[in-house]
Amino acid sequence: MRGAVIHAPGDVRFEQLAEPKIEQPADAIIRTVATCVCGSDLWPYRGLEPIGDPHPMGHEYVGVVEEVGSEVTAVKPGQFVVGSFATSDNTCANCRNGWQSNCLHREFMSTCQAEHVRIPNAQGTLVATPEHPDAGFVPGLLAVSDVMGTGWYAALAAEVKPGSTAVVVGDGAVGLCGVIAAKELGAERIIAMSRHESRQKLATEFGATDIVTERGDEGVAAIKDRTGGIGADAVLECVGTAESMRQALRSARPGGNVGFVGVPHDVRIAGDELFFSHVGLRGGPAPVRRYLPDLIDRVLSGRIDPGRVFDLTLPLEQVAEGYRAMDERRAIKALLTP
Amino acid sequence: MRGAVIHAPGDVRFEQLAEPKIEQPADAIIRTVATCVCGSDLWPYRGLEPIGDPHPMGHEYVGVVEEVGSEVTAVKPGQFVVGSFATSDNTCANCRNGWQSNCLHREFMSTCQAEHVRIPNAQGTLVATPEHPDAGFVPGLLAVSDVMGTGWYAALAAEVKPGSTAVVVGDGAVGLCGVIAAKELGAERIIAMSRHESRQKLATEFGATDIVTERGDEGVAAIKDRTGGIGADAVLECVGTAESMRQALRSARPGGNVGFVGVPHDVRIAGDELFFSHVGLRGGPAPVRRYLPDLIDRVLSGRIDPGRVFDLTLPLEQVAEGYRAMDERRAIKALLTP
Repeated sequence: MRGAVIHAPGDVRFEQLAEPKIEQPADAIIRTVATCVCGSDLWPYRGLEPIGDPHPMGHEYVGVVEEVGSEVTAVKPGQFVVGSFATSDNTCANCRNGWQSNCLHREFMSTCQAEHVRIPNAQGTLVATPEHPDAGFVPGLLAVSDVMGTGWYAALAAEVKPGSTAVVVGDGAVGLCGVIAAKELGAERIIAMSRHESRQKLATEFGATDIVTERGDEGVAAIKDRTGGIGADAVLECVGTAESMRQALRSARPGGNVGFVGVPHDVRIAGDELFFSHVGLRGGPAPVRRYLPDLIDRVLSGRIDPGRVFDLTLPLEQVAEGYRAMDERRAIKALLTP
Repeated sequence: MRGAVIHAPGDVRFEQLAEPKIEQPADAIIRTVATCVCGSDLWPYRGLEPIGDPHPMGHEYVGVVEEVGSEVTAVKPGQFVVGSFATSDNTCANCRNGWQSNCLHREFMSTCQAEHVRIPNAQGTLVATPEHPDAGFVPGLLAVSDVMGTGWYAALAAEVKPGSTAVVVGDGAVGLCGVIAAKELGAERIIAMSRHESRQKLATEFGATDIVTERGDEGVAAIKDRTGGIGADAVLECVGTAESMRQALRSARPGGNVGFVGVPHDVRIAGDELFFSHVGLRGGPAPVRRYLPDLIDRVLSGRIDPGRVFDLTLPLEQVAEGYRAMDERRAIKALLTP
């Protein structure tokens, strides 16, 4: 089979690879129906994270089960399934507490930009749809496997409630899905921080009531201006830089909450500033598995359409162009079809 | 009147001071019935915080109202009152959200180790007891004005719930009150980290089910040993050093919470470690005013007795000995009576 391999910054190739095989009794093999490029894939692509030896890429996927290991009873060959970028047995203490992305047997997916994928912990990771979905739902279901699940977690970690004022820092696919989540959770006012016209437009269509283009201290001041001087109830940090985290923390009101889902790069939080702010903070890789049944249902019922974050669709063999388009901000997110 | 003045590290004197006067219409003057020395007073006393010019000390108090400004209707002369170390108008947006210790007109108290005290924002800060309490309740009510209110907030910020496993880092008066709070909020298991026999004993009497004497990595390992390998649901950080914060964060389970109430000194939190831990974090000066009616009731009904953290009572004029005894760990907390 064939799939993407990163060799060096800026160098992603579509290559012949070994066919994945069942290795453990809880594994499954899927035939990929759609996969995509993630904002976090751009960190190594841009040389901001070490790459080491050439290796496959990709952690977002929907597909059809081809084969299952002897312990897998939750899904069967032929079913259309959605998973998560973090696999989970869904039985350990952390999974039972709802933190499947911290499963004691977690493996992060990393070979999904390919025609076939081995899913470890398939028994606890994969959720089948009631039937094979219409093609129009595939992008939305693919989004659920990562960016929509992550935006959902960001909104929950930020404790968005009915009537909340929410701020979304970051206008990538996760931030845009965070707007959807804030809206679904009942936020009355949703302030999206964005400088890109196409993303502003999508944010507004997803439910943003305000757009703020300022950043840094000016961005914080603009949020304060719109929130009676004290800041927002809930802030979704969807970038992961020191500047975006600072902006998020300073945009929340005393007693408000920041949910942070951008993987932090060189972020250090001053204890005394956090202390005197009274802001609550929770982040991490989203426990997508916890939300899968609910989010799949919201997509299939047409209640949400997070698939709209994909503004570029390419054949999988053009995966390198997907990386380029996102790196150059010509695309929000590239969907790849084998 | 007379009160405590700090001149230099280790040098607290009891001196003649100007009588406080009503300065603003929302002020009140109280005659102090009891005050005390706080663990946080030891930071400047030990030379770990700058002192600057000699200045009065003290932020914990109960007393009898002597005089009120023209806007004060909530309390009247002759009433016994309990306040908070942070004053609040109790009407601004932050107060209405329940964050009175972040009141837009907040003033931190700093002159309470004295015979008379001016209370700014008295209208929103002071709560009168139904009648003058018996002497036996005075230490408990004094504790409510800071350490018990702070322990209560720590337990709420750590999201202690019925059935929780809670860890308390720090065996000072706040930590011991945190044990009381965790017990009242329904924690099933309360692990107190303490190396001092008298404090271990009090923690156990307050409801601690386990005592852990190890610190640092060994302390974390001891907590993991007692929590099925994953860590505690709720951790109360009641110290404020980089080491205690690290220990607290690493003692919480994935998805657990740390409430931090020790004023942070040189604490910096690594964003990536916090991210992958999934631990929620909230701290700050406790919004004691929010809890005053409830905590006063719990003390006067005999349900809790946080006054037991005072293991040394001195006449106010011996305030310097109170500092010495706490600095040398001969006392957990010194109560001072004018």
